[in-house]
Amino acid sequence: MMPVKTIEWVGDADGAARLIDQTLLPNEVRYLDARDVETMWEAVKMLRVRGAPAIGIAAAFGMYLAVRDATPICRDEFLSEVDRAAAYLNTARPTAVNLSWATRRIQSLVAANEDASVSELKELMLEEAIAMIEEDNAVCRAIGEYGAALINDGDTWLTHCNAGGLATAQFGTATAPIYTALEQGKRIHVYADETRPLLQGARLTAWELQQAGIPVTVITDNMAATVMAQGRIHGVIVGTDRMAANGDFANKIGTLGVAILAKEFNVPFYVAAPTSSIDMTLASGDLIPIEERRPEEVTEGFGKRTAPYGVNVYNPAFDVTPHRYLSGIITEKGLIRPPFDMGLQEVFDQERAS
Amino acid sequence: MMPVKTIEWVGDADGAARLIDQTLLPNEVRYLDARDVETMWEAVKMLRVRGAPAIGIAAAFGMYLAVRDATPICRDEFLSEVDRAAAYLNTARPTAVNLSWATRRIQSLVAANEDASVSELKELMLEEAIAMIEEDNAVCRAIGEYGAALINDGDTWLTHCNAGGLATAQFGTATAPIYTALEQGKRIHVYADETRPLLQGARLTAWELQQAGIPVTVITDNMAATVMAQGRIHGVIVGTDRMAANGDFANKIGTLGVAILAKEFNVPFYVAAPTSSIDMTLASGDLIPIEERRPEEVTEGFGKRTAPYGVNVYNPAFDVTPHRYLSGIITEKGLIRPPFDMGLQEVFDQERAS
Repeated sequence: MMPVKTIEWVGDADGAARLIDQTLLPNEVRYLDARDVETMWEAVKMLRVRGAPAIGIAAAFGMYLAVRDATPICRDEFLSEVDRAAAYLNTARPTAVNLSWATRRIQSLVAANEDASVSELKELMLEEAIAMIEEDNAVCRAIGEYGAALINDGDTWLTHCNAGGLATAQFGTATAPIYTALEQGKRIHVYADETRPLLQGARLTAWELQQAGIPVTVITDNMAATVMAQGRIHGVIVGTDRMAANGDFANKIGTLGVAILAKEFNVPFYVAAPTSSIDMTLASGDLIPIEERRPEEVTEGFGKRTAPYGVNVYNPAFDVTPHRYLSGIITEKGLIRPPFDMGLQEVFDQERAS
Repeated sequence: MMPVKTIEWVGDADGAARLIDQTLLPNEVRYLDARDVETMWEAVKMLRVRGAPAIGIAAAFGMYLAVRDATPICRDEFLSEVDRAAAYLNTARPTAVNLSWATRRIQSLVAANEDASVSELKELMLEEAIAMIEEDNAVCRAIGEYGAALINDGDTWLTHCNAGGLATAQFGTATAPIYTALEQGKRIHVYADETRPLLQGARLTAWELQQAGIPVTVITDNMAATVMAQGRIHGVIVGTDRMAANGDFANKIGTLGVAILAKEFNVPFYVAAPTSSIDMTLASGDLIPIEERRPEEVTEGFGKRTAPYGVNVYNPAFDVTPHRYLSGIITEKGLIRPPFDMGLQEVFDQERAS
């Protein structure tokens, strides 16, 4: 069974970017057609589309939508509209590197095509965004292959948040090895941390694995320790929103805790990291900006007040896991083992050389 | 400011056990008057009254309510009604030792007063239950004194779930040192894990600390790692539902994870354990039965479905923290440092000798 499409382009140049509104899952499968950049910005900000790779693609479509109706009097004016769109889209979520990776990629494309007319540039931008979906699928499938080799028949793995198909165009990063292992005929059971405050694990990961016919058990985040203590877990795999050059990585809040527990219980801990999520300009994880979100996500997360009014709340959306807790980094170029700084450098050197 | 009264007796022998319905906090402060044992059983089962010491007192009142209207034809018939009440009340929550501790205490009282009439026995039972509230206050105040010595002016401590005033008659176990430190003029800030699935940290601990004028910050359980990594936390204190003779202890699900994080970040980790919570008949924590609760607490915890229908859920209400993660056990007899098996034995030897 194929995972659902998280984001795709529908129609011709006048069409729309269609995405599943993930805030409504698992109770309702409703699609949203984004026809302007503001709608796309809001969708990213409100987590209707989320997950590092998926918001990269969303941003690329957003770039096109921002200038689709532009009628600049000269190329420079168009370029400045493109730059403005990039700056605007990058404000939607500060932590994910894929936003700026995607907007920069579209900016570079425009800059590189010096002789193209404005209408040709618009066409190129849409083509590039659509191409990014195919690339994302290829990246996820490659991560799936490298990661599946780590999974044994009969294993039980734990994951946190959703780095699944819903976090990418279709196949997922952290879930890709699980889907591939299933295709290889391996039996696998997944424990999904519900992932407070927004419950992406319970709402999204559990839903998409269930759709794919994979046995999944939902636990609250604070149960991960006891299931590991009971010896139920053979491996942990998570995604990342941004990884530094030394392998430190930001991921959904709670990932650091799971990593520490995995170390304590000698459970292998892997991160699925497409190279687009790796920011080689950052030496270490403490340089990754961490998005803080509204207190109401914690105190009124379910349409019901669950903490006293006036109470202080700390609500960081991500934490940073130091690379020392990692058993390996699964990229589309292969599995990287420690020392991670050298391994990551090698991957990027190869990329430049190719 | 005095913490609110969690449970008290109102009226004469025909009166009722009055308790705050904790399932409605923090949005509504509503009191429930239990006038029969079934109401008390339901209140314990549904967590309207919860926390090891408080449910011990609730069970003692429940014993009285069970036989208040009994008209046995002989003493033996009355005794068997008392035994039946104990067995019934003990089914409400399997993990907390205080339930059986309290029901056994009432049974022993009845057995010890061989010459008392049935109406005299009923009177003794009610007096005993009321006396347990005074004892609980004395125990909590003593724990407060011993624990406050561990808290420095300006400290920030983290707690999990609610072992506060609401978990006892009035002063709390894990919170008693915080209230006492405040009385001593120390400034203290508390981080409260929200404590999924039932959010006792966000709903109850945050509420009662706020009522007492103590600065409190609510975080989701999975944020404990990042606040410790940031060096914000000077100590952790939790309660316990049952401790074994070696210091291993059961407490609200998630405590084990916090203990492991505290060890990783070199944060002192204490448990407040009244001797009534210590079960010297159990050699180690793996012998403590762990209550599993309804999956809907995880998937529909907020009156709204937050996971797909048909998904597996694992919902243990408690986990067991091995004593090796503990810096100290705070009892009403003093602070116990490792080796805990010897320290606990000493406390119980003294108790027997006194």
